[in-house]
Amino acid sequence: MLKLNYDKLSEINSDHGLSRKEIEAESVNLKMYLDKIKSYDLGFYSIIDDEKLLKSIENYASQIKGKFQNIVVLGIGGSSLGTICLQQSLKHLYQNELSEQVYPKLHVIDNIDPDLINGIEELLNLEQTLFIVVTKSGGTPETLSQFLYFREKVKSSNLVIEDHFVFVTDPEKGLLRELSNENPNIKTFEVPSNVGGRFSVLTAVGLLPAKLIGINIRALIDGAREMRDKFLSENFEQNLPFQMAAIQYLSASKKGKSINVTYPYVQKLIKLSDWYRQLLAESIGKELDRGGDKVNVGITPVHALGATDQHSQNQLYMEGPNDKLFIFITVDKHQVELEIPFEEKFSEKLGYLKDVSFEKLLKTEMQGTIDSLVNYNKPSIKLEIEKVDEKNLGELLMFLETATAFLGEFYNIDAFNQPGVEMAKNLTKKYLTKT
Amino acid sequence: MLKLNYDKLSEINSDHGLSRKEIEAESVNLKMYLDKIKSYDLGFYSIIDDEKLLKSIENYASQIKGKFQNIVVLGIGGSSLGTICLQQSLKHLYQNELSEQVYPKLHVIDNIDPDLINGIEELLNLEQTLFIVVTKSGGTPETLSQFLYFREKVKSSNLVIEDHFVFVTDPEKGLLRELSNENPNIKTFEVPSNVGGRFSVLTAVGLLPAKLIGINIRALIDGAREMRDKFLSENFEQNLPFQMAAIQYLSASKKGKSINVTYPYVQKLIKLSDWYRQLLAESIGKELDRGGDKVNVGITPVHALGATDQHSQNQLYMEGPNDKLFIFITVDKHQVELEIPFEEKFSEKLGYLKDVSFEKLLKTEMQGTIDSLVNYNKPSIKLEIEKVDEKNLGELLMFLETATAFLGEFYNIDAFNQPGVEMAKNLTKKYLTKT
Repeated sequence: MLKLNYDKLSEINSDHGLSRKEIEAESVNLKMYLDKIKSYDLGFYSIIDDEKLLKSIENYASQIKGKFQNIVVLGIGGSSLGTICLQQSLKHLYQNELSEQVYPKLHVIDNIDPDLINGIEELLNLEQTLFIVVTKSGGTPETLSQFLYFREKVKSSNLVIEDHFVFVTDPEKGLLRELSNENPNIKTFEVPSNVGGRFSVLTAVGLLPAKLIGINIRALIDGAREMRDKFLSENFEQNLPFQMAAIQYLSASKKGKSINVTYPYVQKLIKLSDWYRQLLAESIGKELDRGGDKVNVGITPVHALGATDQHSQNQLYMEGPNDKLFIFITVDKHQVELEIPFEEKFSEKLGYLKDVSFEKLLKTEMQGTIDSLVNYNKPSIKLEIEKVDEKNLGELLMFLETATAFLGEFYNIDAFNQPGVEMAKNLTKKYLTKT
Repeated sequence: MLKLNYDKLSEINSDHGLSRKEIEAESVNLKMYLDKIKSYDLGFYSIIDDEKLLKSIENYASQIKGKFQNIVVLGIGGSSLGTICLQQSLKHLYQNELSEQVYPKLHVIDNIDPDLINGIEELLNLEQTLFIVVTKSGGTPETLSQFLYFREKVKSSNLVIEDHFVFVTDPEKGLLRELSNENPNIKTFEVPSNVGGRFSVLTAVGLLPAKLIGINIRALIDGAREMRDKFLSENFEQNLPFQMAAIQYLSASKKGKSINVTYPYVQKLIKLSDWYRQLLAESIGKELDRGGDKVNVGITPVHALGATDQHSQNQLYMEGPNDKLFIFITVDKHQVELEIPFEEKFSEKLGYLKDVSFEKLLKTEMQGTIDSLVNYNKPSIKLEIEKVDEKNLGELLMFLETATAFLGEFYNIDAFNQPGVEMAKNLTKKYLTKT
């Protein structure tokens, strides 16, 4: 069960920290914000009740079982980040390099750099490859160009398109949907139109590839449901996502902490930070508030990894400007336990490593970093989960999604649109058409 | 040859941009800052003339040729980030997943998370593995604990320590040096004591593993030397690193751009941003200036990757707070050229992709992003290199190192120490000893 620990916020100077009272004072807004969120047409927290979706993914998975050695996801942004996070968190850290594979290997092509596309293509045997084309709108140029590329490759290898491509897209609109309508033999999964890309990891977008590589998607959903219950609670103590949003908002707007550093001391969660980075940046970075006033708000997400980044970023975090809220993430238990061997001859210089496991060293380094931050008057909070498994990760993903929804209400902005990306898209199309 | 393009800075509102005149006005300080830097005992830009070092690495490489399938670097921070950057930039993007290998595979264990250590261990055949233990001080707990762990494994497999371990450490001090003195059969390379960890990529720290996986280290050095000449020039037009530092400093101190987003539109440079992230954060994030006054300065590095992060961060970058300087990096030529296949039936919706290569799409998207940033009054500069090869990368690395040295002078801080990391280290040792 996820715990949110913010004891350290009240241990530092009140110019930078927050007292429990300051945070609790926000509870007066809980019901209003929750009612507002419920009034929007948002599918991300109800899609997890969609038994039909789970069944259809499971049926498809058993249908193609054993047919493919490789799954390749063609997608970018919200169509890829959740999948990468699920794979990196729940499979072996170097799954694709293991000599034995029970499930297909998964690769995600989330860029249009030709060196990436070619690099992954070189790993594939097309006959044994299934491409999952993921674009919610059905019109993402990066994804469609990749699709055109591999479609051509599959065709010219005399393979059948519908055997090697699956679509995940809008139920009605877009080019991919049109192609699917033209060729109903291409298996197509829906992303409900009321679930935004960055909130779509628990739809077919994330669940389909996850299931195909052997992730327990029902446990993921179970964890997400437990957190959803907390999110829907009008009780401040129960509602962890609301507390999280209150801390982020107060720290940013009252104490100048416009940067949020996600700092897991868990190697397996290294890609969670990338997923959350999109969620936070795109949801909260907005020019206009709901009243149409120019506010140009936003929290800049930064990801760090402990203990690695102690040797890269801690100097700045300790001594640099006090503009960051640190969000540590830790687990009770790592997957394996490893002891650090010790010899008496090292007692003088390495005595502190005696009877210490790597897990203990890692956790103690985190504690050292947190306490040092306190000494430098830098605010931090801590998310604690039991271990990195499906249940706990589902809980964590839903926690961050629902906290972000609340955060939008604190800022009085629309956390679910992204108008600021249109101009670059349009310029790109214009430049390409001109030349 | 690296080009630094800052045309866009003068195209935006002067509250956020910089005119060419403002930047050039800093040229009066060039000679003074350069003289200061030359007065410090800094080895990072002279080590590249060390022919003996190159020869010793080359000799060692030919000596062990064919003996190992795996190279494992044990190191953290400055002992690992440069190596990871060289590998990711100059080898195949998925080198370790290719079925044929000419050189050993390289893995870097840069964390003490037991799941990482165990995860990589599972990929190794110890008999065919060489461990390179890299710690400048010779006392880094993370690296030494990893060393103790794998030393035990090698021993208990009845293998000979000196056949499977190489050290890279200080010429005189530290535990690793002591062990090397005790057992002179362990091949040991030096990191000169006047080269700091984050500036050490072009010493044995980065060059040894690079050479062992088939990277042309002499070309790397050649590129670095060319940039070093520019760095040593007292001519403002010639001295690109000085210009870069002036832009970073003025943007941060006069225009509130306290965040630098490194934004390569080059998949192969994805890890360059991690390397630079340490360089910038640790060098410039300082509590005290050289006069001992409390200044708490620092630039927060953020890494992004184009075009991928257009779908994750651009919303924030366009509409959010105007607190960032964007540093785009682009190449004239990618490694491969790939055309996007086109069919007339897609003309209506995808007409803009006709006769477009992936490279062109990628570059045009970058242009769209840059021009959109101009419209939102957000400042950006662009670094252009010909391609990602040893020569160009060597130039780029030296460019960023020397620009950072100048940046320290602009801030009047010591860019070469890291006093802020001591407290967390000491607390960790105290907590471990207590319990």
